[in-house]
Amino acid sequence: MKACGLIVEYNPFHYGHVHHIQAAKEKSGANIIIAVMSGSFLQRGEPAIIDKFHRTRAALNSGVDIVLELPYPFALQSSELFAKGAVDTLAQIGVDSICFGSEMGKANPFIQAAYKLQTTKETFDDVIRTYLDQGYSFPQASNKAYDEIGIHHLDMTKPNNILGLSYTKTMMQDDYSHIEPLTIPRIHNEYHQEKIQHSIASATSIRKELHTNGLTEKALSTLPKQSVDQLQHYKKTANIWHQWELYFPFLHYKVMTMEKQQLASIFSVDEGLENRIKQTASTATSFADWLEKIKTKRYTQTRLQRMFVHILTNTSKEEMYQQIHTDSVPYLRLLGMSKQGRAYINKYKKHISIPIITNLKKDQIHEMMLDERATHIYYTILYPEKRIILRKQEFTGPIFSSDYP
Amino acid sequence: MKACGLIVEYNPFHYGHVHHIQAAKEKSGANIIIAVMSGSFLQRGEPAIIDKFHRTRAALNSGVDIVLELPYPFALQSSELFAKGAVDTLAQIGVDSICFGSEMGKANPFIQAAYKLQTTKETFDDVIRTYLDQGYSFPQASNKAYDEIGIHHLDMTKPNNILGLSYTKTMMQDDYSHIEPLTIPRIHNEYHQEKIQHSIASATSIRKELHTNGLTEKALSTLPKQSVDQLQHYKKTANIWHQWELYFPFLHYKVMTMEKQQLASIFSVDEGLENRIKQTASTATSFADWLEKIKTKRYTQTRLQRMFVHILTNTSKEEMYQQIHTDSVPYLRLLGMSKQGRAYINKYKKHISIPIITNLKKDQIHEMMLDERATHIYYTILYPEKRIILRKQEFTGPIFSSDYP
Repeated sequence: MKACGLIVEYNPFHYGHVHHIQAAKEKSGANIIIAVMSGSFLQRGEPAIIDKFHRTRAALNSGVDIVLELPYPFALQSSELFAKGAVDTLAQIGVDSICFGSEMGKANPFIQAAYKLQTTKETFDDVIRTYLDQGYSFPQASNKAYDEIGIHHLDMTKPNNILGLSYTKTMMQDDYSHIEPLTIPRIHNEYHQEKIQHSIASATSIRKELHTNGLTEKALSTLPKQSVDQLQHYKKTANIWHQWELYFPFLHYKVMTMEKQQLASIFSVDEGLENRIKQTASTATSFADWLEKIKTKRYTQTRLQRMFVHILTNTSKEEMYQQIHTDSVPYLRLLGMSKQGRAYINKYKKHISIPIITNLKKDQIHEMMLDERATHIYYTILYPEKRIILRKQEFTGPIFSSDYP
Repeated sequence: MKACGLIVEYNPFHYGHVHHIQAAKEKSGANIIIAVMSGSFLQRGEPAIIDKFHRTRAALNSGVDIVLELPYPFALQSSELFAKGAVDTLAQIGVDSICFGSEMGKANPFIQAAYKLQTTKETFDDVIRTYLDQGYSFPQASNKAYDEIGIHHLDMTKPNNILGLSYTKTMMQDDYSHIEPLTIPRIHNEYHQEKIQHSIASATSIRKELHTNGLTEKALSTLPKQSVDQLQHYKKTANIWHQWELYFPFLHYKVMTMEKQQLASIFSVDEGLENRIKQTASTATSFADWLEKIKTKRYTQTRLQRMFVHILTNTSKEEMYQQIHTDSVPYLRLLGMSKQGRAYINKYKKHISIPIITNLKKDQIHEMMLDERATHIYYTILYPEKRIILRKQEFTGPIFSSDYP
């Protein structure tokens, strides 16, 4: 059995993801596709539009064999730690390759760039610091730094490429050097033009369409049936699709309960940001308004959104440091699998040195505290009866692809 | 100028309160009536039905000359500390007497009982402990203890009498012995039968009527115009009248963000209550349901409601101990005054040794941190635009009785 890993969020699952699964199978020659997926909150600092269980079902019904949850401490991070958590999770379950989307779809420029960064790390960091001191934003400064150390063949303004390079850098470390980095080209609009919307930007536009107008023709044209089924089923069960604005009253309340020094103990509330948060809290009338009031050139919107998620989930620096400063992810949370996926795990599990958690059991809650808390808080905006029903999924997993829908 | 103090909550202000003000004037011969009033959250562990500013207006328009806010650390306490904070606040502003309602309306039984308790304190505490160990609830155990030390002339099952005795005990301390305890009888239904509802039980029934059916004939028959005006004005401004159930989603969210040891750092989360709170949180569908699930013989509903307020406002043991273990209240928060009240303060203020705070200023926020936080959180259930409007009142006080309504 040969396994290929994908690093995904499926927010929501769309035709681009169907293509990714098929192309990864072809490119890797693998017969098992394993996805590591962010859980309740995503890398850009947002709640997932539907819960991790429903996104898992859409994936299993579309050809993924195993879905693992990327633990919270790695999911809500900039590309380096996000990549470390994702690659390590896939390494623990034993993938032979990892296949990611990129602009050009060629692995070589990533491998070369990763190598170059390794050998010029100090220069690179110095250059970034210099540009930051000159008042450039972090994305601007790092683009200039890439250019100066001679990385010209990768467009480092593209989020796909930034993530891809982080994956490749991680895979070049000794522990992961047996994993082959594969990449497929970002599907352009020419390709399957009628049906496929795919980039991060268009996932954003799909969500916007769903939140504003619902499952319109336009939205449906971007979503395979197995995703539409899950979106509908979730809406029926929970009454809503999730978005930041629904959490705003809770976030605002949370900040109101905290004194500045408590705020400063939250992960990523650094460099006096607690003062800006407090100053802007009283007059903020929505989440978007608050972001607008708090932002400066120094912090990207994504950076601030992630920070707000950590405040919302009450995640302290101490809790995060304990988990991210370890050699490997603490456990594998198995959200779902196909028959083939189950056969793979049964065969491979003797080689897995960390716990495999298939559902929440009382004695494991401590172990996976941050994920459990995040999921609890993810459901907090629902009516109590709905929240209680959906939370039960934590205890009854994993999902089998035959449990359709 | 002679001043008489009242200890009040005005939740809401009703005909019984009108009578209290008039009777206190007559009984004390004072020409200045000073009320110390709980702020956003009340002694029984509930949010006030309308905010402290609107309740202040109702009081000023009904003959009260000065309204002071009882600081949060004393307002949300059982009778001993509640009495200490209230009596000390009134002592700081220089009242000659304090007039409270009681069942019989005679001061002597209170004075005798207070004296008896002072001389038999150890026996009394021993007796209570014995009954608690035998499985009696705290109210049951203390009733039995009152009986055993020979307090027969006060019905200590009545909340009015429990509070009255605590006030009297406090006034017998050296610092306050210049203040005369006065009491007026609880108005029975025979008296002004048509118009007056008055006991704690009937304030409860007025709130119930207001929340369930609004300003009906029945509700109006218990409320003077100056109270109705404020209730209507508040509803127009805020859209709602406050009650615990509206805070339930926030309380639940708060508990979900906290690990057990953090919960245990909250004031009054003692004796392993953090475990019961966590155990019952997942399945609680409303505030009433949660209370029902968490209660034991050991804890009264009031005790648990106060605890939930402290969780909601994130008030730690450390913060509370700092404030309640001092010799006096830290400041006088002046919510409102009449012309006469202003003249009194101008005359008397040179004798006042603690700060008089008339509104929130940036440099005073730290000083009155717990009150400010509680008020912020009190408004948290409103739409942002409403919340911002109402919060402005914190900065524009004090209210003058001519600012009607």
